[in-house]
Amino acid sequence: MSEYVQLMESMGEAARAAGRALARSSTDLRNAALLAAAAHIERRAGDLQRANALDMDDGREAALSAAMLDRLELTEQRIAGMAAGLREVASVPDPVGEIAHMKTRPNGLRVGKMRIPLGVVAMIYESRPNVTAEAGGLCLKSGNAVILRGGKEALRSNRAIATCFASALQEVGLPAASLQVVPTADRAFMEELLKAERWVDVLIPRGGEGLIRYVAEHARVPVIKHYKGVCHVFVDAGADLDTARAVCENAKVQRPGTCNAMETLLVHRDVAAELLPALLPQLASKGVQLRGDEAVRALYPAAEVATEEDWHAEYLDLVLAVRTVDSLDEAIKHIQTYGSDHTESIVTRDHGRAMRFLQEIDSSVVMVNASTRFADGGELGLGAEMGISTSKLHAYGPMGVEALTTEKFIVFGDGQVRGTS
Amino acid sequence: MSEYVQLMESMGEAARAAGRALARSSTDLRNAALLAAAAHIERRAGDLQRANALDMDDGREAALSAAMLDRLELTEQRIAGMAAGLREVASVPDPVGEIAHMKTRPNGLRVGKMRIPLGVVAMIYESRPNVTAEAGGLCLKSGNAVILRGGKEALRSNRAIATCFASALQEVGLPAASLQVVPTADRAFMEELLKAERWVDVLIPRGGEGLIRYVAEHARVPVIKHYKGVCHVFVDAGADLDTARAVCENAKVQRPGTCNAMETLLVHRDVAAELLPALLPQLASKGVQLRGDEAVRALYPAAEVATEEDWHAEYLDLVLAVRTVDSLDEAIKHIQTYGSDHTESIVTRDHGRAMRFLQEIDSSVVMVNASTRFADGGELGLGAEMGISTSKLHAYGPMGVEALTTEKFIVFGDGQVRGTS
Repeated sequence: MSEYVQLMESMGEAARAAGRALARSSTDLRNAALLAAAAHIERRAGDLQRANALDMDDGREAALSAAMLDRLELTEQRIAGMAAGLREVASVPDPVGEIAHMKTRPNGLRVGKMRIPLGVVAMIYESRPNVTAEAGGLCLKSGNAVILRGGKEALRSNRAIATCFASALQEVGLPAASLQVVPTADRAFMEELLKAERWVDVLIPRGGEGLIRYVAEHARVPVIKHYKGVCHVFVDAGADLDTARAVCENAKVQRPGTCNAMETLLVHRDVAAELLPALLPQLASKGVQLRGDEAVRALYPAAEVATEEDWHAEYLDLVLAVRTVDSLDEAIKHIQTYGSDHTESIVTRDHGRAMRFLQEIDSSVVMVNASTRFADGGELGLGAEMGISTSKLHAYGPMGVEALTTEKFIVFGDGQVRGTS
Repeated sequence: MSEYVQLMESMGEAARAAGRALARSSTDLRNAALLAAAAHIERRAGDLQRANALDMDDGREAALSAAMLDRLELTEQRIAGMAAGLREVASVPDPVGEIAHMKTRPNGLRVGKMRIPLGVVAMIYESRPNVTAEAGGLCLKSGNAVILRGGKEALRSNRAIATCFASALQEVGLPAASLQVVPTADRAFMEELLKAERWVDVLIPRGGEGLIRYVAEHARVPVIKHYKGVCHVFVDAGADLDTARAVCENAKVQRPGTCNAMETLLVHRDVAAELLPALLPQLASKGVQLRGDEAVRALYPAAEVATEEDWHAEYLDLVLAVRTVDSLDEAIKHIQTYGSDHTESIVTRDHGRAMRFLQEIDSSVVMVNASTRFADGGELGLGAEMGISTSKLHAYGPMGVEALTTEKFIVFGDGQVRGTS
């Protein structure tokens, strides 16, 4: 145990110092480090694949599921993807140092805000080693040091990626400790990390609901939570039905295993009879298993009966719950009752109802006439993402570089002092 | 215990429903409620003072300190101050519904952000009943429901203030549960509040360090921490010494018991011999007890020896630690080592060093040529404040109405679907 206390202390101290150096560094220098890291990853693709092959061997021996092994594997394409991702992050604007909202007070003080890095970010995640490069890139861009605690099955792959970053950082003259991979997957060390308030400014867990609940309950460091996505599409009365069919198919079928895929379809009673007999067979033909309320089953008897559980479900699979509603109000109420604050979309031609949906649904991403699958940092223009926050504090929705910064107040005076009050 | 579980559930459910109604309500309606609450507070000043007199009697019987009794008392002036504060909050711009950062993506999606309330805010605080009106006003303005858990010594005063809000809310047609005062000061109920993730979106503790640490360690609800203020003024080489003397006296003497008062003065060696023999007697004449390093004591032998402890101290009193430094770098290093991320000010005529101080000090408020006493929501133009956050996540520095909101993504499409990726 005390060995981990020491390890946390030395990693934390190094991260804090690196964070300060990064906060002072120029945009150019941090971008140069990102580009150099991309180059190292490409150049050392062989080393990465050798390290990954050892992880894969152990994974097979430990009888990891096929899905887990797939996530673990560093294919040539994924390695190229990591490098491309770092170049993309290098190209987005640097939020650090931005000064905004300057106003002059009656006494002549000029008051505004300056955007600064958070300091030290820690990430706890599961098997995918490319998250190491993605998270590392976003933190470096935003001037934060990062401590990465990946899954034990990916330890060698993660360390090989970290080596590429270390070379890049040293090349441009930034501290190698800007990105540190935790050298052990022992849970006892994770406990230290959860308590490391002194060294870590924010902790971002990414992975299954169990991991996130564990971290949220035990952490003393502030946590940004990424829970599940029970995403809804609501097809309004009078909606364009071609749009509705295209959006629904894409939202459910294009990649059903992701958190921004549609899980429940709400259909206004006025369009149900026209829409569902065409849409539901279309979805079924793509392999979607359908569950509906009575009105849905009257129109499409092949659907199974949807139960209360279905309205809560994040299937992450080719399964869809379908419900008819009498009004926009009923749709909003359903989403407020069963939704997970992730992403919802309305398909409508009515401006007033589009704006009411936008206003009254307080999920992290609210869309009009678009597929929920766009709820993604890259698709929304953030360059990349650290994950999708479903809690409102600090960041809400896909987290890009700006979500890794905060604003401090800056005040310019010429000798002002405060009067009586 | 189970009685408190039920109480939390019923208060939480009512707060959640009220928060939804507030989020939908117009700016005009919320402002009308604030003005009506101000009017009720003035009209019922007698009721408030009678309720407060009972709290004061119990406080005297319980042998509360004179300072605590002073904070507890609702004088005529304080009652007028509460009403004026609510009118001030009604007059600041409404952040809710603000749409910003709209950009068009290559596929034609328009992506931006809309500012929304957090939902339900809970506040845990100690004796001052006027915090009830202040926090209530800021939450109402920003479209949040609020659950207020004040100290047991102020329970009747707080309930009397809540009654004014309830009348105002009902008058304009907003739910009375928009502002709820916890009807018990039992710690066991506070424990329920700390765990009420489902109902409470953020918890803001305000009070002594002990209370805040307790809340931070035990809460499962996200907490915005308000720790101590070890504020520094650094007088640079070549500073205007009249400015330096005015700023230092104001920062230390004007109201020494507040968290934004100066606790440590750092002086560049090059100006020490000219500044200190004038400044330190000036401070001493105002009753300030001085503690210095060797160089300071050589210039002003009446100063006591400053120890390591002094550099960490938040005196909240007429005591000042004074240290000489060789450079801006040494000043920055001292602040990074001993500071509390609250407020620091540089007195300088040099533009480059002013900008470096602004850049490299990552406290929540960083000033140039101004008294640290301005680190206050009202003084910085926020209208009022919920407190001063010293942790970087979500809000940093004085928290006004905007700090009680977050941004969701909004996406306008015309049927876009996501391609392969």
